[in-house]
Amino acid sequence: MELIETRMGKIEHKIAIISGKGGVGKSLVTVNLATGLATSGRHGDVVILDADLTGPCVPKMMGLKGERLSAGPPGIFPVTGDVGVKVVSMDFLLPTEDAPVIWRGPLKMSAIRQFLSEVAWGPLEFLLVDLPPGTGDESLSILQLLPEMDGVVIVTIPSEVSQSVVKKAITFARKMGVPIFGVVENMSGMVCPHCGETIEVFSKGGGRRVAEEMGVEFLGSIPLDPRISADSDEGIPFIIKHPESPASKAFMEILEKIETKVKE
Amino acid sequence: MELIETRMGKIEHKIAIISGKGGVGKSLVTVNLATGLATSGRHGDVVILDADLTGPCVPKMMGLKGERLSAGPPGIFPVTGDVGVKVVSMDFLLPTEDAPVIWRGPLKMSAIRQFLSEVAWGPLEFLLVDLPPGTGDESLSILQLLPEMDGVVIVTIPSEVSQSVVKKAITFARKMGVPIFGVVENMSGMVCPHCGETIEVFSKGGGRRVAEEMGVEFLGSIPLDPRISADSDEGIPFIIKHPESPASKAFMEILEKIETKVKE
Repeated sequence: MELIETRMGKIEHKIAIISGKGGVGKSLVTVNLATGLATSGRHGDVVILDADLTGPCVPKMMGLKGERLSAGPPGIFPVTGDVGVKVVSMDFLLPTEDAPVIWRGPLKMSAIRQFLSEVAWGPLEFLLVDLPPGTGDESLSILQLLPEMDGVVIVTIPSEVSQSVVKKAITFARKMGVPIFGVVENMSGMVCPHCGETIEVFSKGGGRRVAEEMGVEFLGSIPLDPRISADSDEGIPFIIKHPESPASKAFMEILEKIETKVKE
Repeated sequence: MELIETRMGKIEHKIAIISGKGGVGKSLVTVNLATGLATSGRHGDVVILDADLTGPCVPKMMGLKGERLSAGPPGIFPVTGDVGVKVVSMDFLLPTEDAPVIWRGPLKMSAIRQFLSEVAWGPLEFLLVDLPPGTGDESLSILQLLPEMDGVVIVTIPSEVSQSVVKKAITFARKMGVPIFGVVENMSGMVCPHCGETIEVFSKGGGRRVAEEMGVEFLGSIPLDPRISADSDEGIPFIIKHPESPASKAFMEILEKIETKVKE
């Protein structure tokens, strides 16, 4: 615990990205927010902890698949990506791509504790933690081990099915006493690349609605864009490959709001 | 354990729906396969166990939100939906929609054990278990407590990011010694409702590719359709509301393959 405090004391700001439901784009939001921070004068000063132990996606999305964590006297070193974002992920420790991490809760807790205490995080401005879906072991461990978290960003999609689960995540963060920065709605209406009309693929407006109902800020909507999935598969953060797209602009606006909140 | 064996012995076939990654549509596949089974002469003979304890979605998608589990001398009774599908879910036990289940692994294991042993499952033809994402506690518990599982259906989306995680789920099922029925690719290309052109929202062909690479059967693709999300929000299974759609036909074809496998 003391070692975690020492290590973590060297990171100025800590933000967790959570959601109740899986597949809403937590990793996408984490990767693009981190990239936005790193490319606005913070090269090498931003690290992502991919805390999804059983389904880590961040390395693939950042073009770091196949990389390995190395270690030296100060501890374990994160892997650094092209844009200057550092990454720590279970994926860097697995022997093969198809190797599953079949762990029960206590092992997960100890893996997270090890990451926090044994990685040579070094002096950094931002730590972004990409949490797995749900309010289970990993999320609980991270929020208990990092009580000095600046705040959490909650990611959802517009559908109602997602809303009932995201409400649980908001209540979870409240119970844990962590400030809630607000709700990001991902996969908001998509513009058809053929005809230009908007399609509400996953219903409409749920993110804003849940934010209002639960009394938290609505940080913005990120439109669905087929290029987002293609860029993730290619391992290039979307805001790097398509900086002029509406989705990238939405990411940058959300990032500005978060930076303001962090400074408060 | 004995009680579980007695209870479970009364159910002819047991199928688990798994994926490595969240949000790929496990619950959607579970609900529609169960509905397909129930409406083809098995009214009241199909039950879903929603084993996603922290993010249960099945009740909402079946129009059973707000229902409660009741109990009598034989045990806890599942809730029965309009189409004759029975459902057991943590959601039926929570006081409010926004109440999170903040549990570590051991508690989850005991909740699942209780569901299996204390629900009056009764003589039934099919149990479909909707597992949460990942290869953690819930999935591990279910597969350990139900060694007589007929097989697992693995759900994915077409993108590569999803593939590396779904491979872990396939290896997981293999390590647990459960037969793998095959891979279902959800959110395959969407037809624009305005112009009729196809949009590859989440890249293309990943489901078939991962099935080939891992040596398992490819069961079929379910096209993305904005009405799927709308119907789920409304609480009506898609194959009931839009039986003539390509997605519903895909569900029925996949169901036929699964029924053949179960009979083998």
